[in-house]
Parts: sequence; C-alpha cells; structure tokens
Amino acid sequence: MAKAKAASPDATTLHVDKADIVRALTAVGRVIENRNTYPILANVHLSTKDGQLTVRGTDLDIEITTSIPCDGDAEPFTAPAKTLLDIVRKFADGQVALEREGETLHVKSGRSRFKLPTLQVDSFPTLKGGKLSEPFAINLAALFKDTSFATNQSDNRTFMHGVQLESFQGKARATASDGHRLARITGEAVPDFEAVNFPLKTIGVIPDGDVTLAVSRDKVQIEFGSTTILSKLIDTPYPELERLIPKNNERAVQFDRPSMSAAVDRVSTIASERGGKSVKFTAGGGRVELAVTNPDHGEATDEVVTTYEGGDVSIGFNCSYVSDILRAAGGAGVTFHLADGLSPALVTCDDPNKTFVLMPQRI
Amino acid sequence: MAKAKAASPDATTLHVDKADIVRALTAVGRVIENRNTYPILANVHLSTKDGQLTVRGTDLDIEITTSIPCDGDAEPFTAPAKTLLDIVRKFADGQVALEREGETLHVKSGRSRFKLPTLQVDSFPTLKGGKLSEPFAINLAALFKDTSFATNQSDNRTFMHGVQLESFQGKARATASDGHRLARITGEAVPDFEAVNFPLKTIGVIPDGDVTLAVSRDKVQIEFGSTTILSKLIDTPYPELERLIPKNNERAVQFDRPSMSAAVDRVSTIASERGGKSVKFTAGGGRVELAVTNPDHGEATDEVVTTYEGGDVSIGFNCSYVSDILRAAGGAGVTFHLADGLSPALVTCDDPNKTFVLMPQRI
Repeated sequence: MAKAKAASPDATTLHVDKADIVRALTAVGRVIENRNTYPILANVHLSTKDGQLTVRGTDLDIEITTSIPCDGDAEPFTAPAKTLLDIVRKFADGQVALEREGETLHVKSGRSRFKLPTLQVDSFPTLKGGKLSEPFAINLAALFKDTSFATNQSDNRTFMHGVQLESFQGKARATASDGHRLARITGEAVPDFEAVNFPLKTIGVIPDGDVTLAVSRDKVQIEFGSTTILSKLIDTPYPELERLIPKNNERAVQFDRPSMSAAVDRVSTIASERGGKSVKFTAGGGRVELAVTNPDHGEATDEVVTTYEGGDVSIGFNCSYVSDILRAAGGAGVTFHLADGLSPALVTCDDPNKTFVLMPQRI
Repeated sequence: MAKAKAASPDATTLHVDKADIVRALTAVGRVIENRNTYPILANVHLSTKDGQLTVRGTDLDIEITTSIPCDGDAEPFTAPAKTLLDIVRKFADGQVALEREGETLHVKSGRSRFKLPTLQVDSFPTLKGGKLSEPFAINLAALFKDTSFATNQSDNRTFMHGVQLESFQGKARATASDGHRLARITGEAVPDFEAVNFPLKTIGVIPDGDVTLAVSRDKVQIEFGSTTILSKLIDTPYPELERLIPKNNERAVQFDRPSMSAAVDRVSTIASERGGKSVKFTAGGGRVELAVTNPDHGEATDEVVTTYEGGDVSIGFNCSYVSDILRAAGGAGVTFHLADGLSPALVTCDDPNKTFVLMPQRI
C-alpha cells in the first residue's frame, strides 16, 4: 500500500476493500435515480474520518449513509454513483484505490485504470432530520412485509401511497388501505409515538430484522449496522381507519388457505380486468363455490371445503385482492367473516396479529 | 374414466394427462402470438387419431405440431391457446377431461370446471411444406447457438435477420453477419442441399441435440420426438459471404479469453452508445492495451497479456461485438488476426470449426 501512496504530493489516495465498497455503493444506490433533473443526485458523497469512508446518496426524499473501513484520508468529494459501482463490481477481489486529482477521480485495481469526472462537493444536498424522538428497536420489515400490498401508488389521495405506523396500546401497529382492501399487523411493544405514514420507496430500503427507529414530525431515521436511512414521510395522514373494519360479521367461513389460494388462482385465469376481476364466492352447506363469468373468455367454477354449515351467502371480490390477502395471511387456515353479500368481509388467520378487510364487488 | 364418459350422448370427451397437455401446449405456444389480427391464430387446433391428441399452432410463418397420448376420440376442434395452457397448468397432476359441446369446450379436473369458447375449426390455417428434400439428422441448435448473435433484426436488408445454413464440402455450415461482425460454425457431415436462410424466431424453437431436417425451396421441416416444426425461410439469401472473411492477416494476437472478456467488460462500463461503444485495442510488446475515452463519463484503460511480440498495432472495435464473439468462441485461447488498424480482424479460437470476423471502427 505504501507504494500506491507515493504518487503526487497533492493527490489523496484511499484504499478500500472491493467487497466493502460494492456493498456500500449498492446500499446507497438504492435511493439514487439514474435520470435526474439535478446531475448531483446521480452522485454519491464520499468523506473520510477515523479510518472510515462514509458514502452518502439521496433522492431528496430519502438519504442513505453508510461507512466502511478505509486506509488513507481525503477531503470530501463526489463520484458518479452508478458508474463507480459498475466499475468496482467488475474488479477482482482485493484492494481498490480511489485517488483524487483536481476534478478527476482515479479508480484503480490490478491493471485497470479509470478516470471519472467529479462534481462540486458543496452542492451535494443534505436532509435535515429535525427533532427526532428517542430511538427504539423495532422490526419494521416484519410489519411492512404483509401490509404494503394494500397501498395504492396511483391514487390521487396521497395517504394511500404509504403504510401507517403507530403505537397502539403500547404496541407497534402497521395499517394500509386503498379503500378496497385493508391490511393490519400488530407487532412488539414500543414507546408511544405519533402515527407516521411511511412511503413505499422507504419501506423498500428497510432490511429484514430489528432496526433502530427515531421519528420526528415529518421524518424517520432508521439505523442498522453502519447504515443510516433518513426519510421524509408522506405528509397526509390516513383518515380514521377503524371505521373500515367490520365488527359484527357473524358468518365465519373457515377454509384451508392453500386450497383456496389454488382455486382462486385457477378461476382467475379467465377473470377480466374489464369485469373488475370479480369472483363470486357462495358459501353454504360445508363448501365455498367460486364462479367467474367472462363474456369474452368463458366461465369457470371451482370448490373449496369450509366448516361453515349455515345458509347460503354470495359475495363478489376482486380475485387479485383475495390472492394478495391469502398470501399475506400465511399459515394453514383463513376465515372470511361475512355479514351479507354487500358488506365488507373481515379476514382473519392463524396469526392473531394480522387482520384484513375485503370490500365486496357488485356481481 | 368410464363415469366421465357417461355425459350427454353428443358430447365427445377426451382424457389426457396434465403433464402431457401442458408440455404440448407449451411447445406449440412458442409460435402463437397473443395479440393477433386474426383471432384464429390465438388458438390451437386439436384433433385425435389412434389414441393420440395432435395439437397444432401457427403464426402463418411457423407451424408447430405435436402429439400426446389421449383416451377418447373427437372431431377436430379449436381452443384459445394461452387460456387453455394457463388453466391446465394450474390443475393438480392427473387426468384432464376435454369435452366438446357445440361451440363450447368444457375443461375439467378435480372440482374445477371451465367453459371456453371455440372457433370454426375449418378456418384454422395450414402451412404447405412443398416438395421437401430427403430428411437427414443434424444438430441445428449447436450450429445456431454461437452464430445467431451476429444477425441484425432491425436492418432493412432482410437477409441479415437470419442465419444461413448450407452444405459446404460435405459438411453443414452456419453463417450470420450484419456487416459489422460475422460468425461461422462448421458442423457434421450432411447430404448436399441448397443454402437456406433461417429466421431467428424459427431458430428460437429448435431444441438442443439432433433433429431431422428436410428442406424445400422456401421452407424447412424439423422433426424431433413427436413434434414437427414447419417454417418459412427468409426469402432473401445472403450475398457472397466469403469476401467478408480476411485471408492474409499476418499479426496473430493471441490471449487468454477469460482475461480479455473481463477487461473488455470493465472498460465497456464507460463506453457510450454515442461513441459507437468503441474500445481502442493496442497490441505490441507482449501486451494488449484497451482504452476507452468518453467525453461525458471519463476514461478507462486495462491490459491483457498476449503472445504477440511484433510492432504496435492499434485498432478500434465495438466493445459489445467483441464481448459477443469472445462468448461465442468459448474455450481458453482466442487469437485476433490483424492486418492493420483499418482492416477487418479474423478471430479464431480453440475450436477450429468456429470463425469470426470483426470490422474495425474509426477511433
């Protein structure tokens, strides 16, 4: 390493491990958009301190910062994020040298030499966290994994773009709904905090397992390992969600989840977008009959066994919404709690922490 | 099976094995386009004979016919190809019942019941083979696998859309070229036949290993197992290809293929479409230097060892074309045979049956 440092006296050369820099640029690159109105946003910010290289990237809504071991010190600089990652990813395992020389960044490994343009480091934007709450441990991924499907990214009502996270009776609770279906998961004990609405892009960069969360009025900070995510929130909160959850649906139609998933999948083959992808469910006498009629593509019926022995009740659902909920429910058994053919259905499953709601479709 | 046959006396019920019908519809479905000007082309033709169900599909250029064991007999009928495949694919393993009733096809398995619309079977088109040559065995996939990349599907000169197959000095030979690169592979001994130009879509449905080929003036017939492909050919033949292959390039620049592939891959990271993706290769003194300059994204250099010890020669190539040829060459060693910096390069490799040509780019 000493020989690499023997370059020009102005030059500052950093040495990092290839696997480390690939991991850091991959993590930070998850928020970086390639086609940007502002060229600086296609770059990463690099700085060194105490033998660590800190890599930072942002799309102005989310900022990801991560650190890796590094040999050498340099003034902060920028580098084109995607190009730098594409280059280092293709290097053989081992050391990578990053060397600043004026506006140019030299990247070297083995016999490979790259010169990349850099941008003014002062123009690199920083998100401000605001006054954050006391941080606490929480498994965010587990809360969002089976709720975020119920958001709707194309609706004008922006609250539906996100998943609401709140503390309710001392526990974390995530809820999403686009008015057609609702998904709610209750998690572990957490301190009290004001409800916040997480954007889907932020949810997409949260790793599995426990993280450390701190919330402010309009931002969240998520820490894990040597990485920090600072993200804006959706500024419109969900309206009252409780009223969407039916309370007194007395017909409990319980069935085997894998059997129902397979049957819904089969009949949905001929359900059309034009027809709202409607499947008619008729429960009664120990069975659920599924029926789809599509004027262009024919008809389909299928059947699943249920414990429900009461009188016949028929209700229409969007087959994609049913499939999504059955997938999110997991486990062996699922119950549709029905009132009648025109009222929302409550869906419960083996996991008492999961609750879903399905709105009926006219059939 | 007897109980299923007890339906209406007019109905003709066929029973097939789920795995068989999935395999047949998948094979035939490879030529069927979903969005068709002619609705009949989105269908398969089904007919029975001697305990076999024959499934046929076409896009009017290629026709695929395959047969599977079947219990029962029926008049020929049609069925929507993609819908039928999507349905049977989702059935549990076992028997599938196909039952005609007027214009409707009933598809049944377990508790699933589908009704699909059928179209007039008389309107189903048939390709005519014309007078075919004596069939012979040939491994077409091996000939096309490493040549078809050198076609160009968007050029107005339609001959470039295909790979030419001919018998040359008693052996099969496949050649493709878009004028920028050429790929040629010589195969096993075959009878004499007139050169034919295979469309890429036809090449895409040819399985690995030996098939039985027969050629006519404007079509080919390819047989394997219980499947027959009948395909139109590209009606424009390649012009004289021999003149594209340089004969007296005296500078032999041999190198390790994996090392060169990796170096080209690295420097190509910053090669731009705008710059013709040019990489400058400079061979001399036991090494090949690769250099890319991109006014927007910087510079890259890399180096690979070569046996060539002669005077320096510099030549520019499109890095994608080099990568494609190195991949197609396979094996450990590759040699660029160069004349000068402005003449086509002959590329040879460990396999003496493979020949490639690379046209230079101005650098």
